[in-house]
Amino acid sequence: MSISSSTSIEPIGVITCKAAVAWGPGEPLVMEEVEVSPPQPMEIRIKVVCTSLCRSDVTAWQSQAIFPRIFGHEASGIVESVGEGVTEFEVGDRVLTLFTGECMSCKHCTSTKSNMCQVLGLERKGLMHSDQKTRFSIKGKPIYHYCAVSSFSEYTVVHSGCAVKVSSRAPLEKICLFSCGVAAGLGAAWKVANISEGSTVAIYGLGTVGLSVAQGAKLRGASRIIGVDINTGKSEIAKAFGVTDFINPDDCSESVHQVVKRITDGGADYSFECVGDTETITTALQSCCDGWGLTVTLGVPKVTPLISTHYGLFLSGKTLTGSLFGGWKPKSDIPSLIDMYLRKEIKIDELITHNMPFEEINQAFNLMTEGKCLRCVIHMPK
Amino acid sequence: MSISSSTSIEPIGVITCKAAVAWGPGEPLVMEEVEVSPPQPMEIRIKVVCTSLCRSDVTAWQSQAIFPRIFGHEASGIVESVGEGVTEFEVGDRVLTLFTGECMSCKHCTSTKSNMCQVLGLERKGLMHSDQKTRFSIKGKPIYHYCAVSSFSEYTVVHSGCAVKVSSRAPLEKICLFSCGVAAGLGAAWKVANISEGSTVAIYGLGTVGLSVAQGAKLRGASRIIGVDINTGKSEIAKAFGVTDFINPDDCSESVHQVVKRITDGGADYSFECVGDTETITTALQSCCDGWGLTVTLGVPKVTPLISTHYGLFLSGKTLTGSLFGGWKPKSDIPSLIDMYLRKEIKIDELITHNMPFEEINQAFNLMTEGKCLRCVIHMPK
Repeated sequence: MSISSSTSIEPIGVITCKAAVAWGPGEPLVMEEVEVSPPQPMEIRIKVVCTSLCRSDVTAWQSQAIFPRIFGHEASGIVESVGEGVTEFEVGDRVLTLFTGECMSCKHCTSTKSNMCQVLGLERKGLMHSDQKTRFSIKGKPIYHYCAVSSFSEYTVVHSGCAVKVSSRAPLEKICLFSCGVAAGLGAAWKVANISEGSTVAIYGLGTVGLSVAQGAKLRGASRIIGVDINTGKSEIAKAFGVTDFINPDDCSESVHQVVKRITDGGADYSFECVGDTETITTALQSCCDGWGLTVTLGVPKVTPLISTHYGLFLSGKTLTGSLFGGWKPKSDIPSLIDMYLRKEIKIDELITHNMPFEEINQAFNLMTEGKCLRCVIHMPK
Repeated sequence: MSISSSTSIEPIGVITCKAAVAWGPGEPLVMEEVEVSPPQPMEIRIKVVCTSLCRSDVTAWQSQAIFPRIFGHEASGIVESVGEGVTEFEVGDRVLTLFTGECMSCKHCTSTKSNMCQVLGLERKGLMHSDQKTRFSIKGKPIYHYCAVSSFSEYTVVHSGCAVKVSSRAPLEKICLFSCGVAAGLGAAWKVANISEGSTVAIYGLGTVGLSVAQGAKLRGASRIIGVDINTGKSEIAKAFGVTDFINPDDCSESVHQVVKRITDGGADYSFECVGDTETITTALQSCCDGWGLTVTLGVPKVTPLISTHYGLFLSGKTLTGSLFGGWKPKSDIPSLIDMYLRKEIKIDELITHNMPFEEINQAFNLMTEGKCLRCVIHMPK
């Protein structure tokens, strides 16, 4: 039986545990002994159970300047201890981490139109929201966080607004996928684009995010779901997730947006950029129909951050939008997605191409870099 | 009394009349005798009554390559003759010209979501939609059209889908403004953005289009309407059209989007680019709030056609969209705007800063180029 924080009289101490530390851009992670501080007010410390590797972990590891750092932001775990003022969680609660939080009280959290929490939104400096400090250190030297989650560690500390309780029936080794990629894809299809029955959809990039968009489109009854990927090996799983037409741009004699326009009689109703490439955003816009064509950008660009697009695409009535985490309010909305999974209304197991123990985490980075996996689930020591 | 086409047995002949011909980019228009062909099947020939000068006439005159050409696309007139098959119009009908038409039967015309007619949409080659020829000539040499309207001529020929009948009570010397700029601005506010009560709005560029957006925002009950223009002389009329806060970027010590974000507590709900400058589109996006901020681009860029914008603006939930003619279905929707004007629910008279006879048309071009007018209405000879 778990002991609730309110009944505990023991002071919560520093934990020393294993974490996979990135010391520099693109350098293999090193398994280190790190000290994990106790949770500060309104924070919780989590024993990570499973964490999956998302493309944006890899992109940030390759390109960003904040090191040493502990990456990882798609994770499930069990609350180990709670900081002062936390009433929402108890020790032993099963949780998912949230890379973008929900304070429940700011202008955006109280609006139905936004999930861009102004207090616990995407943290970019490698620190904790509340005090701009880290909770990890090695011999006193601070180790930076990633998205205020840092799940590539046996234990991590997150703000209580950056975690959500999950059903005891939900398998932690699967549902970690809802922490980012799967939810982002489903949300882009349902909340952002609000795909209507019978419509046509083009999806650029068939990783976990793109396949989740496809699943979302299929469940909404889209009549045609065109999947575009340079890896023809993905065409089978794409079909299983709802893709009706697979296009490998390398096999086309004309530009891919022209192919999409041709087979959709003037352009798709919706297009989605799930590659993380700003040029592809333009291609996705060009693939949409005039008048009501909507392009949703989901990817985090790996090369150039600037989208360069002809104004005429907008003059003809196209729309470009984006969202973080598929527009879901993370605490409020994620439990219902997990319920759908438990009722077998949405599938995620098929997206897990690899399972591996924590010590083999660099192998997951290699597979993702080489485009040889969808999701690798990393299992922490028990 | 007018004679309907069905009762006329006279063959319709060529008309020779005065037109202001542009012979080359940026060259003053030359008043020429032009031959105007009879209307071809489904076309009508119009005696132009009034035509106002729009910024996009000037932009095209300065930058495009199709010459000799007759510009002009905001116009009112009276049907002089009708071509074979026309049943909608009769000789003597009062009409507005439409630079983007409505065939009433294509996929877009039959959808409620689009005004991008696939048959009679924006014509860019200086020709008529039906046969890709011109209806104007000088001594047999073809003179190109502009937007298939070309109202800087005493008589012009348009497709019957590119004109709309107007009430006999509507003053033709005023309502020509509904042919483009005023309708575009009102539509951007109402149909495209669908501005909600109490919201905040930022408008870049306070010409006829921007002021019409302001009027639209005011009528929707926007709580704050921020107008941005480098001409402080516009602040008075801006106020009359609903602008609550006037900003001249040249007077600001910080970038204008920062000013907008500060006075709207994080960014405007809606922003509108009415300058015709792609850099301003980015500024407008930056001025919007995260989560639900919507930017509508209306202008036709005068310099670079490429919008260059950081993907992060979209990742935080902003949306960029555009429209032609404010999203209105031209034939279906414009009469109700004119009715609103006749009921004094919307004002346009104040936008007419100059009236001048046809022979002084180059003066209108000068005033527009120098930014010294809103709308110049050019009156054709009676």
